[in-house]
Amino acid sequence: MSGVQPTTRGPYRTGIKRRQQIVAAAAEAFAARGYDGASLRQIAADAGISAAALLRHFERKEDLLAAVLEWWAGQTTALTEEGETGLAVFERLGEVMRYHTRNRGLLELFVRLTGEATHDDHPARAFIQNRYADLVATLVARLVTAADAGEVAPVTRSQAEAEVRYLCAVMDGLEIQWLLDPGVDLVGLFDQHLAATLDRWKAGP
Amino acid sequence: MSGVQPTTRGPYRTGIKRRQQIVAAAAEAFAARGYDGASLRQIAADAGISAAALLRHFERKEDLLAAVLEWWAGQTTALTEEGETGLAVFERLGEVMRYHTRNRGLLELFVRLTGEATHDDHPARAFIQNRYADLVATLVARLVTAADAGEVAPVTRSQAEAEVRYLCAVMDGLEIQWLLDPGVDLVGLFDQHLAATLDRWKAGP
Repeated sequence: MSGVQPTTRGPYRTGIKRRQQIVAAAAEAFAARGYDGASLRQIAADAGISAAALLRHFERKEDLLAAVLEWWAGQTTALTEEGETGLAVFERLGEVMRYHTRNRGLLELFVRLTGEATHDDHPARAFIQNRYADLVATLVARLVTAADAGEVAPVTRSQAEAEVRYLCAVMDGLEIQWLLDPGVDLVGLFDQHLAATLDRWKAGP
Repeated sequence: MSGVQPTTRGPYRTGIKRRQQIVAAAAEAFAARGYDGASLRQIAADAGISAAALLRHFERKEDLLAAVLEWWAGQTTALTEEGETGLAVFERLGEVMRYHTRNRGLLELFVRLTGEATHDDHPARAFIQNRYADLVATLVARLVTAADAGEVAPVTRSQAEAEVRYLCAVMDGLEIQWLLDPGVDLVGLFDQHLAATLDRWKAGP
């Protein structure tokens, strides 16, 4: 598996394609063996290139992790849509679950890296922390907007944050249950929970 | 850091103590660097012994993982008590959260190993799967018993399982949120959720 030099016919395109192969191999390796457990040598072999060729694209394993996280963020469905307000974003969370069941590898990668990032010194910690904080802030703003528009009963900001944290927790927790036991009806359980939650928000305390 | 031979004054006790030091060092290493990322050499160094001395207690890393899981299970509060029926076990879940906030390392270890065990070939997968299945089965049985005794409104077995899965998901998800952001009020959020859940179960659909 020697390194292949870019040809004069399409060096840039070849470089992009090679980079994508490496990132895909790294994503699988991180999901299967974790960030610490994965080796650049094995990732290069999985991508069908030499370790030296890999190092021309990514000097350090941390650079490769950053590329994998960027790729992961791009693969996952954009949750919020331009100009959208209120409850629509919550009503679409069931789609997120359906997407996960069709893309188990992506979910495994994220659950594994999240588990690793709970420890202070993990290089993915800031990314995962920021992504979670952004998600909570976005959903809280939407719930408050929905309350202001009368779509749901009035809610304080602190209660909106608690509600969003419970909903995110149920998503994360059910995903873990499904990854541990494929017999768990992830989509059905979440749809039922989401419908009950929206009903409860509409009815108010 | 050479291996220390058991003395004639207390060889058995020395062996037990040494073993406990190794398991504690391994638990920290698995939490910090994951199962794949942790090395027997480093664990031996952390425990203050030679790699050769470690190998006399644990021949393979998998044996050490089994010992760590056993130790973890022993450290976590026993959830169910002899002769107890109905809702009491749910009312005690807030204590479990309080225990976690006082034992962050144990929680990190478990969240990390659970994240790793979502992948098919992880050596802790069967242990984590069985523990989760046992927890769900125990809580479902308690909820059904509570319904039969009139402590909560009637519930079908399938609805009881859904309720238990939501509650476990909220616990797991909030724990992850707290590990990522220590500013999250894990105990307060969960206490509020648990009280609302118990009220909802009592009121019925």
